[in-house]
Amino acid sequence: MMTIKIETLRWAHNKLEMIDQRILPAAFEYLSYDSAATVAEGIRSMVVRGAPAIGVAAAYGVALEALRLTSEPFALSLPKEGERTRGFDRLSPNGTQNIFASDFNSGMETGFTVLAQSRPTAVNLFWALQRMRKVWENVATQTPPQIAQRLLAEAHEILAEDIRINRAMGVHGAALLPDGARVLTHCNAGALATAGWGTALGVFRSAVEAGKKISVIADETRPFLQGARLTAWEMVQENIPITLITDNMAGYMMATGEIDAVVVGTDRVASNGDVANKIGTYMVAVLARRHNIPFYVACPLSTIDMSIASGADIPIEERSADEVKGFRDTHWAAPGVKIRNPSFDVTPAELVTALITERGLVTQPSREKLLALTGSGA
Amino acid sequence: MMTIKIETLRWAHNKLEMIDQRILPAAFEYLSYDSAATVAEGIRSMVVRGAPAIGVAAAYGVALEALRLTSEPFALSLPKEGERTRGFDRLSPNGTQNIFASDFNSGMETGFTVLAQSRPTAVNLFWALQRMRKVWENVATQTPPQIAQRLLAEAHEILAEDIRINRAMGVHGAALLPDGARVLTHCNAGALATAGWGTALGVFRSAVEAGKKISVIADETRPFLQGARLTAWEMVQENIPITLITDNMAGYMMATGEIDAVVVGTDRVASNGDVANKIGTYMVAVLARRHNIPFYVACPLSTIDMSIASGADIPIEERSADEVKGFRDTHWAAPGVKIRNPSFDVTPAELVTALITERGLVTQPSREKLLALTGSGA
Repeated sequence: MMTIKIETLRWAHNKLEMIDQRILPAAFEYLSYDSAATVAEGIRSMVVRGAPAIGVAAAYGVALEALRLTSEPFALSLPKEGERTRGFDRLSPNGTQNIFASDFNSGMETGFTVLAQSRPTAVNLFWALQRMRKVWENVATQTPPQIAQRLLAEAHEILAEDIRINRAMGVHGAALLPDGARVLTHCNAGALATAGWGTALGVFRSAVEAGKKISVIADETRPFLQGARLTAWEMVQENIPITLITDNMAGYMMATGEIDAVVVGTDRVASNGDVANKIGTYMVAVLARRHNIPFYVACPLSTIDMSIASGADIPIEERSADEVKGFRDTHWAAPGVKIRNPSFDVTPAELVTALITERGLVTQPSREKLLALTGSGA
Repeated sequence: MMTIKIETLRWAHNKLEMIDQRILPAAFEYLSYDSAATVAEGIRSMVVRGAPAIGVAAAYGVALEALRLTSEPFALSLPKEGERTRGFDRLSPNGTQNIFASDFNSGMETGFTVLAQSRPTAVNLFWALQRMRKVWENVATQTPPQIAQRLLAEAHEILAEDIRINRAMGVHGAALLPDGARVLTHCNAGALATAGWGTALGVFRSAVEAGKKISVIADETRPFLQGARLTAWEMVQENIPITLITDNMAGYMMATGEIDAVVVGTDRVASNGDVANKIGTYMVAVLARRHNIPFYVACPLSTIDMSIASGADIPIEERSADEVKGFRDTHWAAPGVKIRNPSFDVTPAELVTALITERGLVTQPSREKLLALTGSGA
């Protein structure tokens, strides 16, 4: 089988390119992004999804906005010096410093805001924006073009780091899976949810790399079908045995003894260890506990939010009713029915056997253990 | 809103007509059936589904087969008396008794067999076939046309009885729901799953009839989407407030306190009270227990199978992989993925707050209580 190298996000032709995950697996196409607003729309519409991938995309969104604000066409469109009411330091109009610092700063603030409003639940988005802001602050005295280049370098670093972190989590997680393990996963926490390798699916890739035979069971994950479309596609690409079920079959598979472990990703972990992840994760966790099946969460440190006390403080995104009415343009729901579409749920820490992080495992996660791991206060 | 009277099955033009539930709610159409084989195919392909409706359809399948075997075109196609090796009593060729009893008997046996093989899990199918066989045996000395008329009368009686039974269950079940209750249901245990009124949805109809305000939350019920297509459609027709969710949202809705009770139907209840029902029911029951939400099963006596010790003995149908790959002709699953499609699961009796039967409630069902209720041994 031909293997496609999965570069969920890549820098090419001075733009961010992202695989359009809305149309996988029917088509494999990159879309191109050149500003904070377009990246934000890509995140909102789920061209890119998955907490770590959203973080990387947001970092590039910030860098792209800086590049855009310092580019010729944009800067030349600004009012000339004499037309301005407030006389800030107009930079030299030679193509490299042709923008007022004030215009740059306010443009960047707008970019940060639009990115922050794209999706509410995954904390990696805010983590990445904060990291980019810190970099910006550190070089604030430099010219906007210099700032833009520094931000771009940071986005590249965040992408490369993400893959290294996934690899490290993979090694820690693979050690948990016995040879021959049949492992359930929910949604897609794969290469497509990250810069590459994946969190939960990274654990599976690392287990196979370590010579273990494992097989994966994927919940299809309505309504966006990340399991049926993305996880199944990734595992088929990797030649890792993969079985697809609908979300309501996981309990049956556990009751019939066909599942040995669960590994999922997460969009935000609260300081007490509560885990927000794709809607349905909580149901899987409750079932796993009933059947004494270990429930693992692959979780980079960037996904841990020490600023909130518990999962009750995690904002849960409610998406469009259209997603539940059917899939894409096919609607099957009876006309006139009301629809709910919460996109995430919270699994209490007590149901989590262990968090798998790049620094190792956190068994039975608690605030004390997460404080020790991250070294940060709330 | 225009209300369509839901006659899931009806006798018209000397044939059985059934609403084609595969195309609801996009289209509302009846298909016509004139033999055991065509009815069996209608059951297998899920033109009709739902345990009680399958039972009624099977009863008509038997009657239709008897009518077909005694009809002019069929009887005249049989070998003439002189051509036969065994000389049974050739009936008079006047259009009413024009068939050998041996041909009739073997034809009927084939009809029973093909009907029994249509779907394995719902016991009402076998219950109805057994009841029809008993009627046949009671009038075995009569002529085939007389037998056919007696069988048709019995099918009519089973249909009428089913509605009376649903009404009685509805009254018992409605008493369990407080005014203002928000009730989750899974799959479709409605008028469309019965001869009319419904089992679980019959409880909702009866609650409304009794003047209670209730609202219903429907799991969409992948892969066949009975909740999104059929339950939502029925409730919209009735003006009963209805909210649709995907199957993986039920846990979230319970955790956020938006569900007060669960009512589902069943395809077979074992003698110890274990409940087989549409795949996913077990997950809902486990979640309900965790959240101390009562879990009720609307269950006519015809669905109780005292011949089996527990749910472990209930055959679980595994249906075509195509159903899980997508919906109808739209396939979204990644090519190359393996698929499982168990159509039912078993909820252990310990998770059932009460069975709602036409004879009243069975709280915390057990073999002793079901023996007392049905008065039958294994």
